[in-house]
Parts: sequence; C-alpha cells; structure tokens
Amino acid sequence: MQNRYFDWAATAPPLAAVRETVDRCAADYYANPSSRHHQGREASAVLEESRCQVASALGCDAQNITFTSGGTESNSLVLASLFWKKRKGSVVLSSAEHASVYGFIPFFREIGCEVITLPAPLGFVSPDELSRALRKETSLVCLNAVHNVSGAVQDLPALVSAVRDYEQQRSAPRIHVHLDAVQALGKVPFSLKTLDIDSASFSAHKCSGPRGIGALYSRNPASPISSGGGQESGMRGGTENLPGIAGFAAALDYMTDHCHDHARHFEEVRSVLIDALSCIPGIVMLQNRESSFAPSILLISVSPIPSEVMIRLLSDRGFSVSAGSACSSKSSKKLERVLEAMGISSEAAAGVLRISFGHSTSIQDAALLAEALREEVQKLKGMLA
Amino acid sequence: MQNRYFDWAATAPPLAAVRETVDRCAADYYANPSSRHHQGREASAVLEESRCQVASALGCDAQNITFTSGGTESNSLVLASLFWKKRKGSVVLSSAEHASVYGFIPFFREIGCEVITLPAPLGFVSPDELSRALRKETSLVCLNAVHNVSGAVQDLPALVSAVRDYEQQRSAPRIHVHLDAVQALGKVPFSLKTLDIDSASFSAHKCSGPRGIGALYSRNPASPISSGGGQESGMRGGTENLPGIAGFAAALDYMTDHCHDHARHFEEVRSVLIDALSCIPGIVMLQNRESSFAPSILLISVSPIPSEVMIRLLSDRGFSVSAGSACSSKSSKKLERVLEAMGISSEAAAGVLRISFGHSTSIQDAALLAEALREEVQKLKGMLA
Repeated sequence: MQNRYFDWAATAPPLAAVRETVDRCAADYYANPSSRHHQGREASAVLEESRCQVASALGCDAQNITFTSGGTESNSLVLASLFWKKRKGSVVLSSAEHASVYGFIPFFREIGCEVITLPAPLGFVSPDELSRALRKETSLVCLNAVHNVSGAVQDLPALVSAVRDYEQQRSAPRIHVHLDAVQALGKVPFSLKTLDIDSASFSAHKCSGPRGIGALYSRNPASPISSGGGQESGMRGGTENLPGIAGFAAALDYMTDHCHDHARHFEEVRSVLIDALSCIPGIVMLQNRESSFAPSILLISVSPIPSEVMIRLLSDRGFSVSAGSACSSKSSKKLERVLEAMGISSEAAAGVLRISFGHSTSIQDAALLAEALREEVQKLKGMLA
Repeated sequence: MQNRYFDWAATAPPLAAVRETVDRCAADYYANPSSRHHQGREASAVLEESRCQVASALGCDAQNITFTSGGTESNSLVLASLFWKKRKGSVVLSSAEHASVYGFIPFFREIGCEVITLPAPLGFVSPDELSRALRKETSLVCLNAVHNVSGAVQDLPALVSAVRDYEQQRSAPRIHVHLDAVQALGKVPFSLKTLDIDSASFSAHKCSGPRGIGALYSRNPASPISSGGGQESGMRGGTENLPGIAGFAAALDYMTDHCHDHARHFEEVRSVLIDALSCIPGIVMLQNRESSFAPSILLISVSPIPSEVMIRLLSDRGFSVSAGSACSSKSSKKLERVLEAMGISSEAAAGVLRISFGHSTSIQDAALLAEALREEVQKLKGMLA
C-alpha cells in the first residue's frame, strides 16, 4: 500500500540531498572537530561552514548559532538557563504553548517566578493581551512563530513591539523574548533579521533536514545547561553531530532556494483540500478565513467521529494524518489542554484532525485524501445516525 | 595524501553498515514514532526494536534505556537531575573525570553539596580511596569505566562493592553510583548485567555508531532535565532521532558479534606500536605494565617536543593523533588538569600524545606511525640538542 503522508508538521521526510550530505559527511569528515590534526581541522571547517549557511538562512550571524539536538533542547537551554541565573521575575507565555515550553511552568513556579499565561484563540497571541500581561518585573516572554497545532502565524513584529514599547515607556530592564520558531522553518517566510528578540529555537527535521539536530539563536551567549567539553563556545557540550549539522544546512539551503515555489505549491494543495472538505457535511473547518495560518497546515474536526477512529480508518487506506501534535499524541491530556486553550469546544476537539503537507505532497494525493475523508465521514455518520 | 587515523578515542569512523542503516531508516521510517497512524506505528516499532538491541548489547532491560544525544547529555541528565531532587549530600568523583562530569562540580557546590575528589594516578580510582571518601550523607559517586585519556580500565566490581559494603556496614541509604561508560563500548568487554550501579552513560560515535546519539541506563527512572513531548517515558523530550538510534543498535550488534576478533586485533596493533616505540630514545611510555589499560589506547610522551608540534608534524605526514582528549584540546587548561590529576609530571605532560586505534586500523599503518614518530623525534631532538 502506498503511503500518502499528511503529517509534515510532526516531522518532514528528509530530502534526498540531505540524506546524501549526511552520509557523505559521515564518511569523509568523521573526525572530531575539536581535534587538532588535519582531519579534525577539516571537520571543524565543515562545522563552521555549515554554521554560516544556517545563520545566513535564518538571517543572523554565525556566532549567534548554537547547534543542539533539536527544538526541545533549544527551548530547554534557554528556559532552564534562566532558572539558574536570572532574578525571580515574572514569565509570560501563551496557554497554547508547545509542551517543551509549557512543561517548564512548574519549574518556574518552584523557583519563585510568577507565571502569566495568555489566552490563545486558535493559537494566536494578541499584542494587546501581551502588553497588558507585562510587569516591571517581567524577565521572560515566550512566543511561538507558527502554532504547531493550528498553524497560526503570529504577528511577531507587533508582539515584539509590544514588549519593547513597554520597556521604553516604563524604563523597564530588557525583557528576554524567546521564540519557538520550530514550525516556521520551510513553511512560512521567516527571518531573524528584523526581529528584536533574544533567543529562538529551530529544528532540522521539521523542514526536511535530519533528525536529532536543531539550533538555538542567542542574541547574547546564555548560560549553558549542559557542561562538557566546551564545544559550541561553551553553550553546549558534546562531540558535534557533524553529519546532522551539514544535513541541516543543506535542508535550509534547499528551502531558501525554493521558498517561492513551495509557497505557491502549498497554496495549491491547500485550495484543493479546502474546496473539497469545506462542502462535506460533518466536517468543520476550524481555521477562519480572516486570520493568517501556515499554508501547509489544515485543522478540521470530524466530530462526533473521534479523531482516533478517523486516524485509524485513514491509516488503513494509506493516509497518515494526525490528531494534533505528535508530541501530544501519546498523552491526550496535553492535546486537550492545547485545544481548550485555543478555544476549540470539547465536542469539536474530540474529532480534531491536523492535515499537514509539504513541498512534495502531490495535488492528486490531496484530492484522494479529501475523497477518502468524504467517504469515511459519510459511512460513519450513517452508522452513528 | 592517505589519512591514517589514530584518534579513535575522540571519535570512531562510522561502520559502512551503520551508515546504511541510518540512511535506510531516514528514507523508510521517517514518520514520528509518537504519531498514531500506520507510518508512526512502524517507526515506533523500529524504535523499540532498536532499544531491545541496545539493551541486549549492554546487558540490561529495554525499559532501562533512554536515548539521548550523546554521552555529555546522558551525564547531564543524571547530574543535573540530582541537583533538583536529592538531599544536599556529598558527591564523590575522581579528580581526572571527563569534563562532562567534572564540569558539574561548581553546580554541586552552589547547591550546597560537599564535593570530594579522589586521586586518580594514571586515571585509576582505588577502591580503598573510594571507601575512605564515603560518608553517611554521600548521595552520589561518579565513576568512569575506561579513562578517556589514559585508557585505564577501572576495577568496577571492586569499586561498586566498596560503595555497597559501606552502605551495609553503616546502614546508610543507597548511594547513587553513576558510571561514565562512554570509552568502554567496543573497546573492552562490558556488561551492565553484573554491575549493581544506578545509571550509566554511553555514546554511539565512540564505537563506530552515528554521531549525535547516546544512551542513558537508569536502574530507576530519574527526573527529567528537559521536559517536552513526553517521549522516552518522560525522561527525555524531543522527537526521537530514529536513524541515529537504529544506527547505534547496528553498531552495537556489530561490536558484540566481533568482540573477540577485535580484542585480538587490538593486542596485535598495540604490540607493534609498543615494540617499536618503547625502544625509541626520547619517547616515554606513560602506561605501566602492571595495570589494565584499554588495548586500543596508548599514552606516550615525546617531551621536550611539545604535543602541539608533534601532532602537526604527524598530521602533515597523514597521521592523526591527539594530545589528550578531543574535548579538552581546545582548552589546554582542562587537559592540564586531567594530566596533573593522573600524576603525570608537567614536563611529560607538555609532550603527551594519545594514540588510539580501532578494529579497522591496519598493522601496516601502526608500523608506519611508529616509524614516522621515530624519524620526527630524532629530527627534532637533533635540532633541540
């Protein structure tokens, strides 16, 4: 049975060029970049060249990039680091934040920080709500660039301005703004160039790069959570995953080169799906038309059919779709928390499906998925009636 | 110029079979193991199959294995975890411990723990010294299985017995024994089966596996340092690096299947090197004959020729050797600390070379390295005379 993969927001299949880069790097540059011999220096040159490629694609300087094992570690490096070092201030984040950020709330409370969670209808954080949540003692604001479940594209310039304006008006000390940009890469135009933020997390496998590799952008070097051999300017110990890093750079190069084609393609696939799905009785489109969503994510509900049942039925026909985020799929409580925070009714939430696609998803597969959904919804509705 | 690689203790070239496994897994099992659809369940099956392979090779149950990004993260998970949760006790570790363990000393002190460092002549920790360092309030003992610079093979049964005997005699609560076993994998016979320890760290790239992947053995689940999506039974968040994990399993399978052949080969290469090097005036063999060293690591000194100079000269002739550990090579202070702790005089330390090799190192290359060393030492001694 052919696999028709519509779970790109969980993880994207790696590009053939990425796999080739990973394998070539593993074969040719296996030495430790910290070694002083010729092979080590060659490996170190590949490392720094890859860092430049990644930095250039993200719109920052190479020195601001630390390679990590992925988005979760990048988030941890910042959040756990603030724990240890910063004054006990107040922390602001959205109530629909990803588990790798939201999971730090108990720790923040433990160390005496006030935690303020913002409402997040459909995943969106409002600049006005953010402004109202800021205090003179606010030390950290956590934002996401694109919401991992709904695909909500945040108005980052307005959100960051809300923070910087507050600082200026109250002569408050600089607030650390951390951005989880994991879902933005390769999906929507993104650049750090014009964003006055302090740190940002990225993951290679979300944009067709290798697994187990990510990056942390830091405006200023932060405190390392993990000590070790002093690699990555002391930010992150451990022998560098050079094949992964080179593969990440190759993925970002490809995404940058093809971003316009991909954007057009996403809109085409999206149109096919929306046109077909929106006229199927029993399917509710959860994204509205007024807001901005990543073109590669569609959020629908097939309620009263449970997500679980529909995922299984579609899977049996070769289609891979998701209930929400893969990270929450083994813990339905986490997903419930996020869907509730997004203002989705518990009825609709019980039948939620996230359809996410990528640059190599064919129009034909999108049409076949819509048709399969139509058939299964009609069949089950008949049985439930 | 042909590369003749003698820096296997820094990182080992990945096996062709490992690279194939990584690439095949990236192509065929790209789905997120947390996803509920067919592709996700297939990926999850590969994950759990790999966990069983790794556990079997290490001599433990699959449920005790958490996959991490490498040895440094595995060490961090345990050491940082103890921070938060355990009573402020006393921590015992060797003064020649790897930076990823030793680097936690300031943190332990910060949170009010007493830190006792043991002498480590040539890297060895003595069971008697360990016994004497134990206190009723000792909460953690950190050991290494094989020392990363000298190759010292610790007497783990005696060391662990020292701890367990102390507990029994004093009716003391169980002391957490953490083992850094990164340098043991694929080099010396190693099994967790008969070791009554609480946690242990492993790294794939040290035994010809992929980079960016490691494992943590935990007798009991510990507290997670990094929250996230709840992967790895809540021990370690982040989408699993499945190609890396499958590659790690493939490497361990190969190492297990070939351990006797490799042990014989290591001894042959070692003999060639020792026979040739020990009769070269100006080369001092730093390992003694009475103690047990990993057969794949030779530690010598070419003092008064600085390590740096000899590494460069050998590198120019195609030979890759190291001054100590790669992790310390960019920070000579860390290496100095370790060499001093090992009881190596500062004169000898200034010319220290670590020659480490692997299963695919040829006898001929070993002879060529010895010959190159002889020529360079004679040349430089003439110039220095």
